[in-house]
Amino acid sequence: MGSAAHLPKGETSRLSPPMTNDPRLTPLAASLPSTVPFVGPEAQERALGRPFKARLGANESVFGPSPRAIAAMQAEAAHSWKYGDPESHDLRQALAAHHGIPAAHIMVGEGIDGLLGLLVRLFVGPGDAVVTSAGAYPTFNYHVAGFGGTLHQIPYTGDFEDPARLTAKAAEVGAKLIYLANPDNPMGTFHDARTITDMIDHVPPGCLLILDEAYIDLAPPGRSVATDPADPRVIRMRTFSKAHGLAGARVGYAIGAASLIDAFNKVRNHFGMNRVGQAGALAALADQDWLTDVRDMVGHSRDQIARIAAENGLTSVPSSTNFVAIDCGRDGAFAARVRDALISLGIFVRMPFVAPQNRCIRVSCGTAQDMAAFAAALPQALASARS
Amino acid sequence: MGSAAHLPKGETSRLSPPMTNDPRLTPLAASLPSTVPFVGPEAQERALGRPFKARLGANESVFGPSPRAIAAMQAEAAHSWKYGDPESHDLRQALAAHHGIPAAHIMVGEGIDGLLGLLVRLFVGPGDAVVTSAGAYPTFNYHVAGFGGTLHQIPYTGDFEDPARLTAKAAEVGAKLIYLANPDNPMGTFHDARTITDMIDHVPPGCLLILDEAYIDLAPPGRSVATDPADPRVIRMRTFSKAHGLAGARVGYAIGAASLIDAFNKVRNHFGMNRVGQAGALAALADQDWLTDVRDMVGHSRDQIARIAAENGLTSVPSSTNFVAIDCGRDGAFAARVRDALISLGIFVRMPFVAPQNRCIRVSCGTAQDMAAFAAALPQALASARS
Repeated sequence: MGSAAHLPKGETSRLSPPMTNDPRLTPLAASLPSTVPFVGPEAQERALGRPFKARLGANESVFGPSPRAIAAMQAEAAHSWKYGDPESHDLRQALAAHHGIPAAHIMVGEGIDGLLGLLVRLFVGPGDAVVTSAGAYPTFNYHVAGFGGTLHQIPYTGDFEDPARLTAKAAEVGAKLIYLANPDNPMGTFHDARTITDMIDHVPPGCLLILDEAYIDLAPPGRSVATDPADPRVIRMRTFSKAHGLAGARVGYAIGAASLIDAFNKVRNHFGMNRVGQAGALAALADQDWLTDVRDMVGHSRDQIARIAAENGLTSVPSSTNFVAIDCGRDGAFAARVRDALISLGIFVRMPFVAPQNRCIRVSCGTAQDMAAFAAALPQALASARS
Repeated sequence: MGSAAHLPKGETSRLSPPMTNDPRLTPLAASLPSTVPFVGPEAQERALGRPFKARLGANESVFGPSPRAIAAMQAEAAHSWKYGDPESHDLRQALAAHHGIPAAHIMVGEGIDGLLGLLVRLFVGPGDAVVTSAGAYPTFNYHVAGFGGTLHQIPYTGDFEDPARLTAKAAEVGAKLIYLANPDNPMGTFHDARTITDMIDHVPPGCLLILDEAYIDLAPPGRSVATDPADPRVIRMRTFSKAHGLAGARVGYAIGAASLIDAFNKVRNHFGMNRVGQAGALAALADQDWLTDVRDMVGHSRDQIARIAAENGLTSVPSSTNFVAIDCGRDGAFAARVRDALISLGIFVRMPFVAPQNRCIRVSCGTAQDMAAFAAALPQALASARS
């Protein structure tokens, strides 16, 4: 062992571990909080002591996955003794056919959350600059902090993420990554093809745009951007968690340049995919009729949420997703009281984190029964928040 | 933007990204190969152009999960629209009761592979020393390389990982982590409680022993070590992938000091657990009778594998797992020819990576049909390898 006798008290050389029983985290890991980006609804139910009447807080699809996906998962359950195919070959081939691109441009992973973590790990080291919108996806920010990156946050313009300001900030700070969700979460707003194409053209050299399209299946048809999958400036993130109704299956995928897609193989957990989830996603992708039905049900529920808001004197933000941001008309503290009152009444909702978007609560689309429960609770929650 | 005019050609400052369209990986990520620790059997089947007759290469449990676990997964499939509980509360409580320890000592994650990746990330930065056995679990080595650690590898003694040499090397190099699988993979050997207790007592200060107990449910009953879960010197890794027959569900857990367990919350993918997998693991844990049946079937199959080996003039290594290492009697090149011949005959097997253990092929336990297929193929494979 090396000698640490010449070192100041409390310092140690690499070869001389400290004389304690405590193992040694990296300095970065030691500096990180043990925070959770979101508390799960189950934890809230345990705190409440009863289940929620309506689960409308996590933008899950209460309409469920395709019955064919459920059947495929049930059939595959008996084969759970086998590891999933580490290449997700069949799913990648089906996705390639669906998008009309080679499979070399597609990486399947454990949800967009998992893929974002890997992508950040590939690109971000201590001090590296990353640009996102203030109040955008906290789990992305969690990954950036987790690898020591420096996050630059741009305010929303209106209730839209601001592509021009995001790319300008990226150029200014030499960012390695820009994050943009389109459609946006938590506000539900949408940029059409022309705006996104223009944004991609303004991505600075050496920077990568992460286009999180978790909700793209629910956006206005025919208005989404088409990109060249070989374009090194952008990686698109897709998921089976939202319109496909498979949040619990943890299946997402990325579309990008082949060399970028292959880079995931440097760091990913190759045998990390759940076999039942792979089967469910494959069957879900094949049932585009179900997706059409979901779009209809989501559209109907969006209208209901907006109408319930209006009946209570509130406006709502036009949404291209499976949720609606309802403007509670005052500040973030008031919206938080509305949210807390709804939760105590058994309605699980969430809200934006940052002003002025945090004047809103965010309500996921639901069944007629969910909507009735929400309609019954909202007046009481508003009264409680105002008192 | 900052000026890079003073920099030598080809270098850039942080504020001046390179004038190319290629995004910038971290230096560590750029240095990593896009390797895969293991090629999956599905990829081999695609290459063969036909399915394997016997899937005996990945130490999966061909006996399958408990019928109650299958039923629980089938029931939960329809609820896949919900994210899994990020706290895995019910499973952690059940595991705590099973082990007779507080839930604060248990972290559930996406298989041992996923938990190993997180643990390495928490502890290992560039140049940090890690100790393992030469020829032990490649996925652990992959994670260490992925975070820039320096791996020190100790040869097996006989066909056993060598606790005394591992801890001595850890003290010599100031290692942050030691990896030991007990029972061992790929050789199947086992250290009893006294040896492991002694090893823990020799873990150097500032170092953590990762005790990978993936196969512990198949080890000789009553001879496993019991540790104080609050002991900061050791973290135990368990899985539902082996004896519980749920490899495809991706559910593992770690047992360790509460502060160490909580550190996973700094970096884990909080919503990463598959909901169907959580339900399957919970039901599997409750069906200990099934585990008893599996132990019997595995024990019977181990005997069959050893007998088949003996019928072909080969010896095998006594195993405390659901696989048997068969000594092919020559060097690694010969064993590789046997393995390749078996694969071409439709029998999926693998083999150790490092001499002299690579004189063996590794055959997972199987059904009577699997054993018959293996018995039929082995003489032909040996003849092919010898020719």
